[in-house]
Amino acid sequence: MSSEPLKIALAGLGTVGGGTASLLSLQADLLEARAGRKLRLTAVSALEAPPGIPLGEASFYADARKMVAEADYDVLVELIGGASGIALEIVKGALAKGKHVVTANKAMIAHHGVELAKLADTLGAQIGFEASVGGGIPIIKSLREGLAGNRVVSVKGILNGTCNYILTTMRAEGRDFADVLAEAQRLGYAEADPSFDIDGVDTAHKLAILASLAFAMPIDLEGVSCEGIRHVSALDIQYADELGYRIKLLGVARQTDKGVEARVYPAMVPLSFPLAHVDGVFNAVVTEGDFVGRTVLEGRGAGARPTASAVVADLVDLARGHVTPMFGLPLSHLKPQPQAPLGEHCSAYYIRLMVRDEPGVFADIAAALRDEQVSMEQIIQRGRDPGGSVPVVMTVHETKESSMQKALARIAALPALSEPPHLIRIEAA
Amino acid sequence: MSSEPLKIALAGLGTVGGGTASLLSLQADLLEARAGRKLRLTAVSALEAPPGIPLGEASFYADARKMVAEADYDVLVELIGGASGIALEIVKGALAKGKHVVTANKAMIAHHGVELAKLADTLGAQIGFEASVGGGIPIIKSLREGLAGNRVVSVKGILNGTCNYILTTMRAEGRDFADVLAEAQRLGYAEADPSFDIDGVDTAHKLAILASLAFAMPIDLEGVSCEGIRHVSALDIQYADELGYRIKLLGVARQTDKGVEARVYPAMVPLSFPLAHVDGVFNAVVTEGDFVGRTVLEGRGAGARPTASAVVADLVDLARGHVTPMFGLPLSHLKPQPQAPLGEHCSAYYIRLMVRDEPGVFADIAAALRDEQVSMEQIIQRGRDPGGSVPVVMTVHETKESSMQKALARIAALPALSEPPHLIRIEAA
Repeated sequence: MSSEPLKIALAGLGTVGGGTASLLSLQADLLEARAGRKLRLTAVSALEAPPGIPLGEASFYADARKMVAEADYDVLVELIGGASGIALEIVKGALAKGKHVVTANKAMIAHHGVELAKLADTLGAQIGFEASVGGGIPIIKSLREGLAGNRVVSVKGILNGTCNYILTTMRAEGRDFADVLAEAQRLGYAEADPSFDIDGVDTAHKLAILASLAFAMPIDLEGVSCEGIRHVSALDIQYADELGYRIKLLGVARQTDKGVEARVYPAMVPLSFPLAHVDGVFNAVVTEGDFVGRTVLEGRGAGARPTASAVVADLVDLARGHVTPMFGLPLSHLKPQPQAPLGEHCSAYYIRLMVRDEPGVFADIAAALRDEQVSMEQIIQRGRDPGGSVPVVMTVHETKESSMQKALARIAALPALSEPPHLIRIEAA
Repeated sequence: MSSEPLKIALAGLGTVGGGTASLLSLQADLLEARAGRKLRLTAVSALEAPPGIPLGEASFYADARKMVAEADYDVLVELIGGASGIALEIVKGALAKGKHVVTANKAMIAHHGVELAKLADTLGAQIGFEASVGGGIPIIKSLREGLAGNRVVSVKGILNGTCNYILTTMRAEGRDFADVLAEAQRLGYAEADPSFDIDGVDTAHKLAILASLAFAMPIDLEGVSCEGIRHVSALDIQYADELGYRIKLLGVARQTDKGVEARVYPAMVPLSFPLAHVDGVFNAVVTEGDFVGRTVLEGRGAGARPTASAVVADLVDLARGHVTPMFGLPLSHLKPQPQAPLGEHCSAYYIRLMVRDEPGVFADIAAALRDEQVSMEQIIQRGRDPGGSVPVVMTVHETKESSMQKALARIAALPALSEPPHLIRIEAA
């Protein structure tokens, strides 16, 4: 183990960058003891140096490219963000010089992870990306190291704090999606353009990374199907409660006989499943391994300090000289996997239909389900509004997604329906 | 990274030993890809070779001492168990030869961990003990590596599967402790002498290990105060339900201004606390770090396959050449910490009194509490049995343990009490 300091160049002094600089300064002695050498911030870059962030003797650069080219460092910590652009450019620049990289940038890893891993391998550099998934939760380390003896069967996670905050608040306060989103935007919990979070894109990035680690495959972002939470209504959340579920935006990746199924969707999660109790800005990941069985890791999924904790864990690993293949095994061992046909996925479902309160409607619905061999489990219909619309809520037993979609297409075409059917998957416990 | 195989000598072919041999055989290719070299079982020892365990070309030894002295290996996997005796002897024997050690033996680590770490340090060997706490949960790795940037504030865990199974079954089936324990013994979930589990000794071993990692102190088993679950009754569990709690045997270690408080006790856990939903044979650990905040790790706490998963994770780390100080930082940095005075611990409490149904009793109880400044929160008294005994259940607000004990001593002396008071701490969420 080297007793030279590990020299760190930090690009980006926003929330996470500031948190990381604080951690490196506040815990300097602890980190030196743990790593056996100092972790020294030698250079930082940002458009301007924000006040109140302890930068010690680090050189300041207004241009990250210049820092990467000229500063004295062993590892670049990239906390600028964005799938490409300046972040990708400086990461490639650092790797090309044989420098290590630590990043919290899930978009960049999801889009360019394999390309970057190849570059790093060629030049003997390491890429740490613990902070890219699940904030402070050590999920990357667990998959690559702690569960290294397992073939992973599935990974299911709550991976986006903004969505989980919105869904938790909708339930706690009985409010509707648009209302809670607007408030979250005012409070700074959601972006002005919230699509990245609420349409599931951010979750898809993280899921693509986890699936790669879990199933020893190159990252396949294209293979992740994606559905967000815009269509989840207060009414659905209320019915979920009544039926013994919580609605959560999940990223789910499964190894099946026909390939890997990777998808993002809001799901009804039974109270007996660990993810049902993960609320607010917390994230959690449930992994099923063939030897270890089920493990659950939960923690804060974002924020300056938790994310800094993950960034620094990667730095301590580098300082200790630990070398782990980026995806848990060498790139040459990663095997692309076919996408499992989504239509063959079996699941139970929750269906909410808004139907005009007329005689005979239910017979048509029941016939459509019967003809596609979809078997009903529960039905809730109460309240009457003769001439108006009433909700009819059903849960159906496990059925093939293609059958469910066919039945639903028939139901959607019924003249009695006043709006398209609402469908939410029920996650098996 | 060496491309020579990592040669493994395995001592003990019981449940975990058999599971480890199976894992090494079944996942040989995966492990080779992950570690960059083969993990080869070269020697095993057991009283006799059980049938059905894949031992490949490993040499068989009936005497573990002889194996340690004569076999060709890089790492000894000790799965015999016991705080001292043969397990300790062979571990010292292997370390003395400069061989690495991987063990699931929490009793040995809790009693002799520091002594073994010194021996290992002297000879450049590593000791892996992930399997000693929490079965397959990568909790040791998380504390030493994943959360390396944090000062840990507290660690709270459900660390004994037998106790959690008993408490979960008592609640689910409304049965009493002795009854469920007897059944667990018949089913092989509890030992013929169950004291080690149900009196909290096993939890204390694991907590002592976690506290050492969390607070950078030498293992201090003597400093762990310990209370088991024998006195938890079906009635208490029923009241817990009514009050919105679950009763769990916890190991809790906290850093306080006056030192470290480490104790094992059955606690009322609010439903909003993650440990409330950890049932059956599952274990879980909640860690509070100053940067990461709260993290929760949950998984199977025992059993052949989950424990083998943890043993093999340590072997993969060794094969990858990762070197981590045994307690997360060098032995010279471990600082003994004073035990925080237990009497100053503040907690809310649940109290159940069995009192003779006579006028005026409650006034005496209330006076005893008032005189010690213990403030009542809720009282449940229902059912009458004139001349007989009825339960009076109270919860009290946060109070110093010493005040609580003084009040309780006065209450215990009241002639109306038909049995000693039952006291259970209420864990803060």
